[in-house]
Amino acid sequence: MAKTYYDASWEPSGPSLKTSEIPGPKAKAAISELNEVFDTRSLNMLTDYAKSSGNYIADPDGNVLLDVYAQIASIPLGYNNPTLRSAAQSDEMINGIINRPALGNFPPVDWAHMLKTGILKVAPKGLNQVFTAMAGSDANETAYKAAFMWRRQKERGGAHVEFTEEEMASSMKNQSPGASQSLSILSFKSAFHGRLFGSLSTTRSKPIHKLDIPAFDWPQATFPALRYPLEEHAEENAAAEKASLDEVEHLIKNYHIPPCAVVVEPIQSEGGDNHASPAFFRGLREVTQRHGVLLIVDEVQTGVGATGRFWAHEHWDLPSPPDMVTFSKKAQTAGYYFGNPELRPNKPYRQFNTWMGDPARAILFRAIINEIERLDLVSRTAQVGDYLFGKLEGLAKKYPGEFMNLRGKGMGTFIAFDSPRRDEFLKRAKQFGVNIGGSGQMAVRLRPMLIFQEHHADILVEAMEKIVTSWDK
Amino acid sequence: MAKTYYDASWEPSGPSLKTSEIPGPKAKAAISELNEVFDTRSLNMLTDYAKSSGNYIADPDGNVLLDVYAQIASIPLGYNNPTLRSAAQSDEMINGIINRPALGNFPPVDWAHMLKTGILKVAPKGLNQVFTAMAGSDANETAYKAAFMWRRQKERGGAHVEFTEEEMASSMKNQSPGASQSLSILSFKSAFHGRLFGSLSTTRSKPIHKLDIPAFDWPQATFPALRYPLEEHAEENAAAEKASLDEVEHLIKNYHIPPCAVVVEPIQSEGGDNHASPAFFRGLREVTQRHGVLLIVDEVQTGVGATGRFWAHEHWDLPSPPDMVTFSKKAQTAGYYFGNPELRPNKPYRQFNTWMGDPARAILFRAIINEIERLDLVSRTAQVGDYLFGKLEGLAKKYPGEFMNLRGKGMGTFIAFDSPRRDEFLKRAKQFGVNIGGSGQMAVRLRPMLIFQEHHADILVEAMEKIVTSWDK
Repeated sequence: MAKTYYDASWEPSGPSLKTSEIPGPKAKAAISELNEVFDTRSLNMLTDYAKSSGNYIADPDGNVLLDVYAQIASIPLGYNNPTLRSAAQSDEMINGIINRPALGNFPPVDWAHMLKTGILKVAPKGLNQVFTAMAGSDANETAYKAAFMWRRQKERGGAHVEFTEEEMASSMKNQSPGASQSLSILSFKSAFHGRLFGSLSTTRSKPIHKLDIPAFDWPQATFPALRYPLEEHAEENAAAEKASLDEVEHLIKNYHIPPCAVVVEPIQSEGGDNHASPAFFRGLREVTQRHGVLLIVDEVQTGVGATGRFWAHEHWDLPSPPDMVTFSKKAQTAGYYFGNPELRPNKPYRQFNTWMGDPARAILFRAIINEIERLDLVSRTAQVGDYLFGKLEGLAKKYPGEFMNLRGKGMGTFIAFDSPRRDEFLKRAKQFGVNIGGSGQMAVRLRPMLIFQEHHADILVEAMEKIVTSWDK
Repeated sequence: MAKTYYDASWEPSGPSLKTSEIPGPKAKAAISELNEVFDTRSLNMLTDYAKSSGNYIADPDGNVLLDVYAQIASIPLGYNNPTLRSAAQSDEMINGIINRPALGNFPPVDWAHMLKTGILKVAPKGLNQVFTAMAGSDANETAYKAAFMWRRQKERGGAHVEFTEEEMASSMKNQSPGASQSLSILSFKSAFHGRLFGSLSTTRSKPIHKLDIPAFDWPQATFPALRYPLEEHAEENAAAEKASLDEVEHLIKNYHIPPCAVVVEPIQSEGGDNHASPAFFRGLREVTQRHGVLLIVDEVQTGVGATGRFWAHEHWDLPSPPDMVTFSKKAQTAGYYFGNPELRPNKPYRQFNTWMGDPARAILFRAIINEIERLDLVSRTAQVGDYLFGKLEGLAKKYPGEFMNLRGKGMGTFIAFDSPRRDEFLKRAKQFGVNIGGSGQMAVRLRPMLIFQEHHADILVEAMEKIVTSWDK
């Protein structure tokens, strides 16, 4: 049966600019008012959400831009999506908003059904359970907690072995053996896993993210730095990946605080869209498994369709699944999936907090999943991504110094390139009607929504050509 | 003008029990199904939220209980509150649900207005800014991050002083001086401030909350253990408070990793409802100020009216405000208030994450605030709390071995006592139609909603008397 594709008729036909610069006068006044009570120094664009629609973001001065940044890759189906609007008006959603449960103590009678028809319907292959959370940072941190408890339980001799008096007393003093300072989480250089104290200890993106914040003495391995185009650098890229895997194994065996888990992004997103091959990730699964170390795949930014598969790690063809997969952003909720029952701690209240997620957001994710399936948006994103990548290859050929290290081929619309004048590129993009994000040192990262289509790609590519031909004007 | 008090006509007139035990057969079947995919070992009561109403919580077997636990003290105005239902149906809320912004980059055009008419309308005296968050844990952790950045900036010589190369390079390795391992947060024994890695390092509630999770080597001071009734132990209680303040000062001056902030709950809630006098907290403000250490007041559980003041620290009559006040639970959103502009880090993106809170939940808090004001619910809670406390004093007199160390006089409905058979007390409460929570080793803690009234207090007290006279039957 032919799928019904996304009907874009409810959004504008293209960008429209009303002021010579963004922010315009109305935005400027509002920003100045906001700054009195809320830090606005990281503000990119003051937004009129009521007037935004589909792939287009609007500001208070009437400017309307094609948005391929999408709230830091977190809007899945466009602004004011009519199907999500219906979900938001449902009795179920209203119930979720006004009767927010403490999920661990008082789960709703239909929580199993909500999970099975929503979050768990799209669980990665081999993983059938979930611990729900609020955002990417706590999704990762609760996964880390599960990893520490799992490993210590193994060391103790199993779930039935009781904690010793010494463990209990020392845990209350933040000391070993109770607060196990003898285990770590291994992450990769330029990784991003969040900004709370545990997740930030695994984040290695930029000093500005980490300065002045205490961190755990946990190990980091080098992420392979692939050279582009891939087909011209096959041998050295394979060598870089092998060196990285060797370093991981060396750290697992020798780091003075041994890791109980390795956490990795399928594509290092905040770090500048750094890719590695499926073979690298299969190697990572193999080396972690061989040493009894868990593999946590952080799909907070890569998950929910943008790479042309629902989960980016489906591209890897793993012989056995990751131990945990964390998610957030386009899911509009968060948590970690797992399969091994040993990852449930041996006693209640060990992995617990007041809200433990949010049914209202779980209901929204279910509506998102249904819409993705109805419109076949993951396959569509794969197709549109191929179309967009082809166009970008053309641009890169025409302007080789402006579109460098184009990457993300075959990865849906999860595409990036390096720009020698990246910050100016992003700024100028608004003048040509598009809102684009950057990451890492010089990457321009494209993070369109799942309803981004070929005609949006045409608008985007045309704008990008205008940017690079406008430099000296 | 006379205030309109809360009209309870939309809720049941009392508890009603349909099954001889809770969970009944329908709940048992649903719990067993849920347990396949979601850990249910901390489950207290499977809940039918659609059938819950006002102060009453319902289960799938048709049991309806007076709820004085209120989703771990997080439901402010009753289940299915009609005013909140209207707020949840508003265009503004629907917009907030389906167009969730990355608040730091793309704040909504009316975000200043939403803050000023909502979260900031009830800002503690002296604090006029907010950093929004998702829940209590990240509210506290982002407050801690602000404290670390503030202190290091002072040590560096001000906001204009750039980071050194050494700081930047070492921060990426999780090492000093960049990742300042040379500073700590001081908390109190039996405190609870959350369960992520940074907040858990300040939580000192129970081993089961902390075991196996790495923690920072941060200091803890003894929280004064007051004896009851207070009037009979004035001298020793004052001595205990002085000893605690002396210990705080000693740790500030001598701990090998000096604290840049002290975090404290107005009433240690998870720790068993441990109170201290206003004089103690004034002393804490004085000693922190004298040593240039920030005072963070964690009002996650005590805030939003339950103590008969909007913020519990209003009871203290501080000469100058706390540096930061964190909030969540009954606010249904989260964050920290502050006033000193130096608590904004010196550069953008230092205190940042993707969502940075949730406008949908900020809209709900605004509706909660408006309803609290319309019905004068904070004053009402003070009155009802006095009424309830009086009744409990009667019970304690009649059954002195059953209701011990009654505490929370003059603190609204934020009342607790110790029970020698606490776990059995809580379990049996359901058989008499009430849902009650515990905390600490043997505390029964009452956490009714702000719409709890005298006739609810009568039902509660009657049920509690039945519990303690039913032991041997």
